[in-house]
Amino acid sequence: MRTTIKDIAKETNLSLTTVSLVLNNKPHRLSKETCERVLATAKKLNYRPNRMAASLVTNSTRIIGMIINDISNTYYAELAKGAEARCREEGYALIICNAGSKKDNEQYINLLIEQSVDGVISAFWPDVAENDVAQIISQADQASIKLVLIDFPRNIPNISYISLDNRQGAYLATRHLINLNHRRIGFIADPFYMKTLSASQRFLGYQNALLEADINFDDSLVVPGKYTIESGYHCTKALIAKEVTAIFAANDLMAYGSYQYAREKDIIIPDQLSVVGFDDIIYSDFFSPQLTTVRQPTFQMGYQAANELIESLKNKTELKSSIIFAPELIIRKSTSALTV
Amino acid sequence: MRTTIKDIAKETNLSLTTVSLVLNNKPHRLSKETCERVLATAKKLNYRPNRMAASLVTNSTRIIGMIINDISNTYYAELAKGAEARCREEGYALIICNAGSKKDNEQYINLLIEQSVDGVISAFWPDVAENDVAQIISQADQASIKLVLIDFPRNIPNISYISLDNRQGAYLATRHLINLNHRRIGFIADPFYMKTLSASQRFLGYQNALLEADINFDDSLVVPGKYTIESGYHCTKALIAKEVTAIFAANDLMAYGSYQYAREKDIIIPDQLSVVGFDDIIYSDFFSPQLTTVRQPTFQMGYQAANELIESLKNKTELKSSIIFAPELIIRKSTSALTV
Repeated sequence: MRTTIKDIAKETNLSLTTVSLVLNNKPHRLSKETCERVLATAKKLNYRPNRMAASLVTNSTRIIGMIINDISNTYYAELAKGAEARCREEGYALIICNAGSKKDNEQYINLLIEQSVDGVISAFWPDVAENDVAQIISQADQASIKLVLIDFPRNIPNISYISLDNRQGAYLATRHLINLNHRRIGFIADPFYMKTLSASQRFLGYQNALLEADINFDDSLVVPGKYTIESGYHCTKALIAKEVTAIFAANDLMAYGSYQYAREKDIIIPDQLSVVGFDDIIYSDFFSPQLTTVRQPTFQMGYQAANELIESLKNKTELKSSIIFAPELIIRKSTSALTV
Repeated sequence: MRTTIKDIAKETNLSLTTVSLVLNNKPHRLSKETCERVLATAKKLNYRPNRMAASLVTNSTRIIGMIINDISNTYYAELAKGAEARCREEGYALIICNAGSKKDNEQYINLLIEQSVDGVISAFWPDVAENDVAQIISQADQASIKLVLIDFPRNIPNISYISLDNRQGAYLATRHLINLNHRRIGFIADPFYMKTLSASQRFLGYQNALLEADINFDDSLVVPGKYTIESGYHCTKALIAKEVTAIFAANDLMAYGSYQYAREKDIIIPDQLSVVGFDDIIYSDFFSPQLTTVRQPTFQMGYQAANELIESLKNKTELKSSIIFAPELIIRKSTSALTV
């Protein structure tokens, strides 16, 4: 069992108050000898101050919690690394929770609140409804826990978030394909792309680029995936059946699913099928052909999310409203001009 | 501020004891009306039971902590997913800490102990010395926290760990290259491959395969990397200067570094350079050429680590000693016969 100050009091035959004064560095008039006896006994019994108890005084645990959606998706891993880097600079610890479903997400939010973290960065939003978001915000608020969202599920006032200009990202990707003469451009959309804000922004960007080029929008060319390689494979199969010449996937993992399907069917990328991804995770530069994709400054976004929390905790100020990063189209080898 | 039972007592004009009896489902003789008043007020004030306080009674938080080395290395992410899957089956929460250095590792072990987790899975071992391991084990023991290691840094008795037969894995990889007539085989080794057990086992497997084939061991062909793509790039540069015809890298990320260097120098894999990795992370099947590698059953290893902890917690038994998984050589397209 863990050593408590009671054990030290018992071992030293001193009062709880005496032991507490010494161990908590409070002002006292105790003898040097008594102090040394307490400290030596604390060391002998391997006493460790209870961070939770200490936090009742300082009202801070110096822990930040982060909820991500899929730890094996390098996008989330990079977000976490960015957040971790900022936490480390300020001596905060970051604990990461991997939520695979809406239910997990709720449980982890509760867990982090119960662990009395100082702040939460939430990057989990694929399928939460408006009420859920409001409830999470209210829970954090009631527990005096600061909350920063990465990617923004809803237009809700007074909430701090970090996001990408997703509409612009999708627009750049789609326009790139149009400039290469593609007209039948399949879109492997985000899950719940009609429901959450960042996802619907990508859908709008795709539509806008088509509209601008006078290409009729065909909703049968939009297939929602699940952000996984496997879902990208199945969506590609569906889109190839619709005779698309190019595919824009809402994340790199789904674009890898396009590669997988194309390889299986001897479809050559980019000669017979152009593919654009979204995120630019580190592996995308290694694929053959190297993946053309929309780069998110993922590490910086995670860093900034933690920075917003930490600055607000340090200065006891409210969180600022939002920071939107700019996307960048990285043209590599998976796209080529359509020649008919 | 968080609502406590004091707030509920004040709001209802009832005693702390009364409120506590109702909220903690203790036997009582209170009226139905009183109970309902307490529960309604708890709901109104958004009262949440304090898990930490509850844990003082049950002596369990149902939280398992996991320390990994690099969240953006998919190997660790898969370990975490496996552990998470087992935790979820039993209603445990998993909190993940990403330790980038020995110092981080110590801090996170302390943090997890302070958060009173029931058990810790540690997969961080690149550069810990014998004393550090002993200290971590002793810390966990003193705090009555169960500990399972993934990959085993040292031969220490009475510690539970999950590992791969790393020696056999490295042997299979090296023998595969020898069978393809390679004689100058560079080894991008684990960091600290002379110091930690799992890493030194790989080194031994490489040496054994050479010995068995009557190939003289040349220590200038062994270059330790850092498990990153970048380190793999630099090690490959050094090994190419030594005129190797094949490279065996101790993880897939470093093998990707070999791809990166080869591409830059127009060295064709596998025609001019054969490359074998270790881990078989999901991306390795997508590379061109697809990477030949030693597969670890990573998800299962994480699952099993959590299972060992949970079974031991459930049955109040000691942890079993160790489980060693078998590696599998996955031959893909990055290796070919040397023709002179």
